[in-house]
This record gives sequence, structure tokens and C-alpha cells, in this order.
Amino acid sequence: MLGAIEAGGTKFVCAVGDEKGMIVERIQIPTIGPNETLQEVSTFFQKFKVDAIGIGSFGPIDVNKKSPTYGYITSTPKTAWRDFPFTKTIKEIFPVPIGFNTDVNAAALGEAKLGAAIGLDSCLYITVGTGIGAGALVQGRLLQGLSHPEMGHTYVRRHPKDLFAGSCPYHKDCLEGLASGPSIEKRWGQSGRTLSERSEVWELEGYYIAQALMQYILILSPKKIILGGGVMKQKHVFPYIYQHLTELVNGYVELPELTNYIVSPQLGDDAGITGALLLAYEALQQN
Amino acid sequence: MLGAIEAGGTKFVCAVGDEKGMIVERIQIPTIGPNETLQEVSTFFQKFKVDAIGIGSFGPIDVNKKSPTYGYITSTPKTAWRDFPFTKTIKEIFPVPIGFNTDVNAAALGEAKLGAAIGLDSCLYITVGTGIGAGALVQGRLLQGLSHPEMGHTYVRRHPKDLFAGSCPYHKDCLEGLASGPSIEKRWGQSGRTLSERSEVWELEGYYIAQALMQYILILSPKKIILGGGVMKQKHVFPYIYQHLTELVNGYVELPELTNYIVSPQLGDDAGITGALLLAYEALQQN
Repeated sequence: MLGAIEAGGTKFVCAVGDEKGMIVERIQIPTIGPNETLQEVSTFFQKFKVDAIGIGSFGPIDVNKKSPTYGYITSTPKTAWRDFPFTKTIKEIFPVPIGFNTDVNAAALGEAKLGAAIGLDSCLYITVGTGIGAGALVQGRLLQGLSHPEMGHTYVRRHPKDLFAGSCPYHKDCLEGLASGPSIEKRWGQSGRTLSERSEVWELEGYYIAQALMQYILILSPKKIILGGGVMKQKHVFPYIYQHLTELVNGYVELPELTNYIVSPQLGDDAGITGALLLAYEALQQN
Repeated sequence: MLGAIEAGGTKFVCAVGDEKGMIVERIQIPTIGPNETLQEVSTFFQKFKVDAIGIGSFGPIDVNKKSPTYGYITSTPKTAWRDFPFTKTIKEIFPVPIGFNTDVNAAALGEAKLGAAIGLDSCLYITVGTGIGAGALVQGRLLQGLSHPEMGHTYVRRHPKDLFAGSCPYHKDCLEGLASGPSIEKRWGQSGRTLSERSEVWELEGYYIAQALMQYILILSPKKIILGGGVMKQKHVFPYIYQHLTELVNGYVELPELTNYIVSPQLGDDAGITGALLLAYEALQQN
């Protein structure tokens, strides 16, 4: 039996299941502080005999296995979680192999092995929600260099008519600052969920996301792009993305038919937790 | 003995040497058409007994080994070379293993194995010259997805005082359209080589290159960034790059000391041809 934790900024999902993505049982816990939240995580897993646990975590995290702070959540603005030794804490309670990566890298893995990018050795998973983040599988491995990617903060060119200053505390009008759920709400004065009928909202959203995809394509050349997260449930954004991206690329790179290339997660909201099961499986194999 | 071809848009460099980067003999040939140029290439290599040949080529090229046009130069604006079966043509003359990748991926490999990124499994090599291109080593392998990267065409935010329209035939004011050698020459009315003393030229150049590096760092997180090509011989660009990049990152990602992180190629102008020798060596090993 494999254990999986999808550690998000607002909620934790814990599940037990197998490497085929079969989930036997799950719970959802609000993200409070490490003590409170991990108490509940621990109570959940104690009901099962897990052979390994995979963690897909909000970041920034330290994914460098040679680092003394490997397995930590590092400089997050959520102060209770800053410099928190995530894998070490879990391993003290459950002395089994622990897989650890970003939530979005986990989701990319889930979609590559069991979802929209099945059979491919390369894909990009982007979540557009409270924040914007992306993970990628490159030549069969989760992308990692100096650290994990931070693609949500890529900058974009502002739409000339968009007067919203941007909501990123670090970069103001980077992609996350202009196109995340909270930035949509701040710009238009109401939650995106209540704006479905306002085409100008989604055209602007598509305008910014297309620019980010253009950069990701030029730099990473992924074989499939998967757009998940709360905002992307507004499916009418997709045609605007296709339209703006086609204009941006302007025939320079050859891409597959966009409706088949840039898609919703096939695992839906389970991409991350499924990927965390696969991280557990990888950790078990490597043990 | 290994053979190497660095196939550039204006010149071909051919060399014979070994996998330690030792070059025994080399020639330089102007890039004309495939018939004329490859005649000279062939004459050069016939003097030696090469066990494998590595090619680092200008692009776009087909690097997908499963593709029916693997080893081709594809949609280049240089019409004589369009749809040219590069590896097949070389293999017909020299029936040895042939390695094939982009010129910039070859340079990245050269710098990673024998240059500025020695010992690292990750680096980015960018050339800023007649065009702008980049190659990358990611987790020990040359970056490839749907195709090879096309990072030179990443877009940047225009400097508010820069009125130059941009020279990229596809995207006008993408990075290549604003910061390549020809775009510098068009903007300022004279070659960059004669503008060394004009600090505004290099501050603007640093402004654009820093933006591209910001995107590359957020998306790829390379362990070392190497800036080569003719324009980067103007070493006074580097401080402007460090300054603008520091402002852009704004503390969001932790980077090594920039003067040690973003550097000139240690192999100088030989990064590409050395990488091509290593491509030959890889092809021989895989044979």
C-alpha cells in the first residue's frame, strides 16, 4: 500500500492507493500549521500499513538530495511552514521511503504516467489557481536543476488596456500577478467564478497564459501541455489561448494541433495526489 | 580519431581530435550550399580515419530519432539548406556513427564536460551573435522535447525608450529581434564592434539579455549559465546583466553569486566544435 500527500497552501489531501492510481481512501485537511495539520495526516496514515509515502508539496522546497536541507519547505510566505523539515518529520512517524517533489511536478508525473500525457517522456503541467505554478517531465524525469522551476513568475507583456497593477508581492505584474485567481478577483472586483459570462475577462486571461506558454514552448519544447487548477475550469479560456498562441508563434515552431496539444488534466483534480502516489512508488523502487 | 562539424550559418568548422577536446587539425569553410560546402568537408575528413563524426548544426533541425526526417535541417530561411538530409549525406560518404544536435546544444555539452560547467549535470549555453540561440544540459542530457529549444525567440518587455522596431522576421521584437548583432547594428546605425565606448548600447543589451535569463532561470533552473557568441565579447555587458537580473529576480529565487553563475565560455570560440567532438564520442559509445 502506498501513501500520498498533496500538500497545498490551503488544503492537504492524503490518500492511500497503488501505483496504478487506484485510490483506496482519502481525506482532505485544511492547511493550518505543521503541528496541527501533520497530526491529522499522521492519524490518517496510521490506519494503514504504508510501504512508502510520496509528497507533492507547495513551495519553494529543497529538492536537492545532496543539500543539508533536502526535504524542507524553505522560504515560503506562510511563516508557520518556513524552514519546515517535511520529509524528516514524516519519516520520524513513518520510517518508510519518502518521495518528495513540488505539487506541480507531482501532477506532471501523474498526467504523464496515467493521464493526458500517457506514453510521453515529456509534458508540462501548469496550475492556474490561487497561485500559478508548473512542473515538467523532461526526457522521462521530473525537471530539476539548481532547484525546481518557478514558472508561474515568468513575466508577460501587459495588455495595453489592462490597468491592473498586478498582485505578485515579488514582481507585481508577472504571470501570477496578472492571471492567478486572486489577481482576476482584484482586477474585476469579484471572483472569477461569478464572471463566467464576461468574455473580456477570459480573453485577457488567455492573452496572458498564451504568452507564458509561448515561453515554455520555446525554452522546454514539451510534448504535451496540461492546464489545471481552479481558473482553468473556465473552459472558455482555451479558445483564447489557442488564438493568441497561434499569433505569437507566427509559424516559427511547428506544433501539434493545439486543441490536442494544450489540454485539461485527464485526472482532473486528482493529478497531484495521483502523482504523489507515483512519487511514493518511485521512492520504494529506489530504496 | 573523432571528427567534428560545427555547421554555422556563415561558416563551417571541421576538426579531428579526441573526446578530451584535443583538436589535432581543423579547417574553416564558408557556408555556401550543401554541394559546395560538403565537398570541402569531405575532402578534409578523407585525410583521416575517423571512427565517428559529431555534427552541431544551425537549425531548425530534426533531432527526433524516431522521425522519418531525423538528421535533416528543416525549415531554415537559407533555402539551399532547407530539408537537407545532413546526417544521411555525411553517412553516405563516411559510414561511421554520426552524432547530431544543434550547434548550441553541442556548445552546452562542450562547456559541461570540458569548460565552465565542468562537473555539473545542468547548464545553459547561449550564443548572442548573428542570431540568438541556446542549448541546455538538463539532468545530464541535452534538452529535447517535441523538438530542440528555440530560446532565442523568447519575447522580452521593450525598454520604454527603445524605439527600434526589432529585426526578427517572425516576431519583430523578440529577444533575437532586439538584441542580436544585426539588431544592434540596425538600431544604432553601426556595428556593435565600433560601439564599445557607448555605454547606453550595452546597458540596453544587458537589459534585454537579463530578461531572457530571468525566464530561463524560472523555467529551467540551470546550474550555470554561459554566454558566448560575438556580441558577448563586449565584456562590459556582463555588469549590466547582473544589475538588471538582480532587480528582476527581486530575491524570489536564490541564485549563486552572479559573477560566478553567469560567465563567458571557458572554451572560448571552441565550445561548439569541442561539443561536436563529444557528440561524435557519444555516437561511438552508443553504437
